Amino acid sequence: MSDQDLEKVAGNGLLSRRHLLGLGVSSVGAVASGSLLAADAGLNLEIPGWSKQPGAGASGYGSRSRFTEELQRMAGNPNPLYPGGGASRSPLHQLQGSITPNSLHFERHHAGIPDIDPDGHKLVIHGLVRQPLVFNYEDLLKYPMVSKLYFLECSGNSGSLFGPNVADGTAQSIHGLVSGAEWTGIPLSTLLDEAGVEPNARWINAVGADAASMGRSIPLNRAMDDVMLALFQNGEPVRPEQGYPMRLFVPGCEGNISVKWLTQIKLSTEPTHFRDETSKYTDTRLDRKSLQFTFPMGTKSVITSPSGKMKLDKQGIYQVTGIAWSGRGSIRRVEISADGGLTWAEAMIESHQSAKALARFRLPWQWTGGDAVLQSRATDSQGNVQPTRTSLLTEKGNISTYLFHGIQSWAVNTAGDVANVYV
Amino acid sequence: MSDQDLEKVAGNGLLSRRHLLGLGVSSVGAVASGSLLAADAGLNLEIPGWSKQPGAGASGYGSRSRFTEELQRMAGNPNPLYPGGGASRSPLHQLQGSITPNSLHFERHHAGIPDIDPDGHKLVIHGLVRQPLVFNYEDLLKYPMVSKLYFLECSGNSGSLFGPNVADGTAQSIHGLVSGAEWTGIPLSTLLDEAGVEPNARWINAVGADAASMGRSIPLNRAMDDVMLALFQNGEPVRPEQGYPMRLFVPGCEGNISVKWLTQIKLSTEPTHFRDETSKYTDTRLDRKSLQFTFPMGTKSVITSPSGKMKLDKQGIYQVTGIAWSGRGSIRRVEISADGGLTWAEAMIESHQSAKALARFRLPWQWTGGDAVLQSRATDSQGNVQPTRTSLLTEKGNISTYLFHGIQSWAVNTAGDVANVYV
Repeated sequence: MSDQDLEKVAGNGLLSRRHLLGLGVSSVGAVASGSLLAADAGLNLEIPGWSKQPGAGASGYGSRSRFTEELQRMAGNPNPLYPGGGASRSPLHQLQGSITPNSLHFERHHAGIPDIDPDGHKLVIHGLVRQPLVFNYEDLLKYPMVSKLYFLECSGNSGSLFGPNVADGTAQSIHGLVSGAEWTGIPLSTLLDEAGVEPNARWINAVGADAASMGRSIPLNRAMDDVMLALFQNGEPVRPEQGYPMRLFVPGCEGNISVKWLTQIKLSTEPTHFRDETSKYTDTRLDRKSLQFTFPMGTKSVITSPSGKMKLDKQGIYQVTGIAWSGRGSIRRVEISADGGLTWAEAMIESHQSAKALARFRLPWQWTGGDAVLQSRATDSQGNVQPTRTSLLTEKGNISTYLFHGIQSWAVNTAGDVANVYV
Repeated sequence: MSDQDLEKVAGNGLLSRRHLLGLGVSSVGAVASGSLLAADAGLNLEIPGWSKQPGAGASGYGSRSRFTEELQRMAGNPNPLYPGGGASRSPLHQLQGSITPNSLHFERHHAGIPDIDPDGHKLVIHGLVRQPLVFNYEDLLKYPMVSKLYFLECSGNSGSLFGPNVADGTAQSIHGLVSGAEWTGIPLSTLLDEAGVEPNARWINAVGADAASMGRSIPLNRAMDDVMLALFQNGEPVRPEQGYPMRLFVPGCEGNISVKWLTQIKLSTEPTHFRDETSKYTDTRLDRKSLQFTFPMGTKSVITSPSGKMKLDKQGIYQVTGIAWSGRGSIRRVEISADGGLTWAEAMIESHQSAKALARFRLPWQWTGGDAVLQSRATDSQGNVQPTRTSLLTEKGNISTYLFHGIQSWAVNTAGDVANVYV
């Protein structure tokens, strides 16, 4: 395909939505896995071993291919003085679609993963209610549930981009504290209604059964909205690292308020000011005032390919693809720039596009061997536009490193190396 | 709650959508997992061991709770003379939502699961094309992809309900050959366009790399529609049992035409009449004529709870829940009957509701200890209504046992036992 045939939609090689890649090679003389059909094509048949004898049988619980085992979360405990205070990051650069498989969903723990026997776990609802109640796991399974696609993101995700030094990172290492899943659970309002909310209650205070007794305060009106007691994740019981047997799930909000291993909800007139919401999870601004209870995640996107530490091995057409999300609605639009934000073209959304869920976008891009800076910019259904890093820093400063949602810039150099940069 | 307070919506105890269950017990004097908060509630604190010390750390690839390991597919090879000809059924009665986790997605193999190294696997497109092409896995990963929620169902699913003898089965054993996932892949039209379809081509003929050389013929106009070359399933590479490194995916159609381990597509003027579409996957009618290429799955639903071999342990309110799907559109409505089809009430759809995908429904039901027959009836966006078993048998006969999509009847007796019945 000559360069003249390509329909440009923005600067530095962004192309209209449908361009053939042309990576298939002529089959004449090629080696292919064969069958009778292929003989017609003049193919040089070399039938692989796996086509010659029956393979393994069906199983009770399946596993992935041994050839995909390099897909791993990046796991670590950053502070040896803080036992169980660790995290693992999803391999965003190797995943596709808008669902994260449960085994690769990001994790964040304050005291590790408790090994909870559901028969010994209780959920207590007390405080400003007419009748304090205790719920068993088996009984909770009988309640009406709803299922929704939602993203979950740690408030510390992408936090290194607040810093002055440019991290030599990947989509996974910089942005891997976000994942997507179908969460199924009981609307929290159902359980609060059963306990009977007193008229003066204004907050719920949720505590987990982990050794950190992780606790967060949530305004009652938010808790009565789309918050759920999540019992299933992508169809199966919530994984231990995600709160088995049950977690709070607060759609669109920073992950830590979706308290895992949930064991208590207390209704009150005021928030509790838990350790976790004073020592952490506040946002100190440039004027040294600290904001508390800043739950919703900003309108955000990240290009997952090409992304940091990848290498473009030859000139040609690449699919720029990534994920976008907003804590305040659905993703309305994602734009892509290949020239560091000078010109923009609208990407296609190639997945479900629902409120507070991940959306997958893409656009073809022709790399002709020059320098480029790839960026994506999301706009949500409320009209919120993802800011540049510079404007986010001007607004928020970098005393607090939570809630970074600025535009990521991936530079491509003439050797094809892709790297995180500030522009 | 007295019986008078319950708002009935259909016969034999079906209730309006929102009734409190009242399964929480008073917390006074109860034993609960404790924290400082709980002391306020007058709870008898007994802090479980898992709350007293940090748990396990984060990991590269997670696994489920040891307390959920009873969730297993029902796997078997029904015929020892047919090596690798097996299947496994999803535990529908234990799952929730509309996504099936990859490890519990149903399987059906004709020669077991080949252990394919993607570096040695090729996809050939040949026949009536301008340029026969061979594609490598690594190159295919560079193509534009789309992500969609779709169901997949084996044409033999629920086939035992064609028989005269009432199987003493479960939702899993009778209906477990259906699952739901987010499938991500390359629109097949993109690859066919690259090879250049000749004007006289009318069919594509797809062959897998398994030892059965599983083959199916698909009309070209269908193949150019929403068919994809699927490379990812729920975000991660397609599992070996689902076709790793690549499978055809034909939304809404019987599973076997979504040829797994896809290695060849040949374009032709006529279908190939593969062994798999003459010895199997035809529908012989009462007049002894056999229909071929009857791909789309019927409008269907099944109640997954209460379902076969469950036991209602006491009188009270239960959530009737299940899944519904159609090969021709989205699910518009699901109705539920508790009196064997005399009266019906509309269930709530409690999940995403998109074309050719699973939808999750529910409705509360009060069991007062009498006999009941629970049924669900789906209607799709085209107006297709799920038929009764009797009318399906009258129309189709039972010479062929494929494509059963009649209404399932679960009887509840006065002891609370739930069983498959014909009504």
